[in-house]
Amino acid sequence: MKLLSFSKNGQSSFGLVKDDAVIDLKSKFNQQYASLRDLLAVDNYLEKIQSVADSTPDYLLAEIQFEPVIPNPEQIFCIGLNYADHVQETKREVTEKPMIFMRLSPSQVGHEQALLRPVEAEQFDYEGEIAIIIGQGGRRISKEAAWDHIAGYACYNDGSVRDWQRHTAQWGPGKNFYKTGAFGPWMVTSDEIKANEEMTLLTRVNGQEVQRATTSQLIHDIPSLIHYISTFTPLQAGDVIVSGTPGGIGLKRTPPLLLSEGDVVEIEIDRIGTLKNTVKNDA
Amino acid sequence: MKLLSFSKNGQSSFGLVKDDAVIDLKSKFNQQYASLRDLLAVDNYLEKIQSVADSTPDYLLAEIQFEPVIPNPEQIFCIGLNYADHVQETKREVTEKPMIFMRLSPSQVGHEQALLRPVEAEQFDYEGEIAIIIGQGGRRISKEAAWDHIAGYACYNDGSVRDWQRHTAQWGPGKNFYKTGAFGPWMVTSDEIKANEEMTLLTRVNGQEVQRATTSQLIHDIPSLIHYISTFTPLQAGDVIVSGTPGGIGLKRTPPLLLSEGDVVEIEIDRIGTLKNTVKNDA
Repeated sequence: MKLLSFSKNGQSSFGLVKDDAVIDLKSKFNQQYASLRDLLAVDNYLEKIQSVADSTPDYLLAEIQFEPVIPNPEQIFCIGLNYADHVQETKREVTEKPMIFMRLSPSQVGHEQALLRPVEAEQFDYEGEIAIIIGQGGRRISKEAAWDHIAGYACYNDGSVRDWQRHTAQWGPGKNFYKTGAFGPWMVTSDEIKANEEMTLLTRVNGQEVQRATTSQLIHDIPSLIHYISTFTPLQAGDVIVSGTPGGIGLKRTPPLLLSEGDVVEIEIDRIGTLKNTVKNDA
Repeated sequence: MKLLSFSKNGQSSFGLVKDDAVIDLKSKFNQQYASLRDLLAVDNYLEKIQSVADSTPDYLLAEIQFEPVIPNPEQIFCIGLNYADHVQETKREVTEKPMIFMRLSPSQVGHEQALLRPVEAEQFDYEGEIAIIIGQGGRRISKEAAWDHIAGYACYNDGSVRDWQRHTAQWGPGKNFYKTGAFGPWMVTSDEIKANEEMTLLTRVNGQEVQRATTSQLIHDIPSLIHYISTFTPLQAGDVIVSGTPGGIGLKRTPPLLLSEGDVVEIEIDRIGTLKNTVKNDA
């Protein structure tokens, strides 16, 4: 199933995608859940959603505004240096433990929303990634049990402001400019993408392919990430793990390919779909 | 005024401290605001609180459980290397721009709650700091206007798991173990601590003073922090800026003074009060 968050007439909601339309789950469940994150926190959310999956859709996808798949995660963990070709292009070294930094909700936009290129920076860059959305929460989750805690997967553009990322050794500011990251268009639930099934990720800028990788190339694989992160903090429904970007980022290309107003960035994952955003100058 | 978040009989609330007692503002305002953060988002929150400040208190402080001053900030920004003696003891260098990393809500506890020493780590350390709580939100706030966006100040213990902080170049995991940071006991509103008024911060472990500094020693001062952070993200009511720790951290003392079960850490700020927590081994 494909689940998404959206707004319609200025009201936030979430729903189930059915072909080119959406069933409004917030109204279907009588406002019992304020957001998709709250629904994912319910034990039997898959059955609940399946019980209304044959309803008549409420809106066409063309009629809604996409929001980030989870607009308000409590925790968003991004992984650095998790593909060998990206480690190489940045002239860094593979780390024994996963490299983790945080994004915060205000840095996210949904599918087809504008990515904002900050006026205070020179180097706005894309990073195509696979996002893992947590369903059942937990602490100190073993690698073996990790798959059971995944609600689904989505495309993520970990948009990065490179000059600000290098202001100090900590990357936070360059990874948290307002509306520079994209998360969508929807999540595909984990009953449809089984444990260890390979996914292929690719990034296009203005139609040109610039990144391509598969999950089999991850240095720290998905169970290892869930195990490591849940060792230090309880994972909760709606938390997001953004699993790292492969080689081919704009800053390290010859010549560099940094983003300007009007550029179109697409992140495609074969089992999920395509997240598409156009760059707009901020303010 | 002193504002705090607390729980009583398992119910979360927030209130106004009056001597050794508290006026329950959540019930006083008829549940109109779900949390202190929501109240701070109201334009005239100071007047609103003042209008009920003469009420009879609802509980003694001894009868409540303290929660983090803001239990659920959308954004918590911590500043690294912001006092010269701490830069020196870590053998790092002063950064031209503020060094920013994030804490997330699950890493916080309130006054008198146990700080959890993780079983997976060897080096649990204290960091006494001054926390700035945002009132009126804003983006691209000038240094001149910065003071107007501060709702108040509190004590913060940016508890750090040093071995995990060094797993990679990004400090997130070592700064986000569950319940390793403390935030309290309350915030003192900014009408009582004027712009540029000096505050003195000190840390004690088991009664022994281990850190002492004043805000005049901050390398990046409070207006500079607000200006820098609000350049990349909109600041919102309830957001927290933890302004950095002075020299004297446990890891760099001779001999080292790392925290064990039963150790008592106090963070005192002259204009605010004392945040006190006891260390407990995490199960």
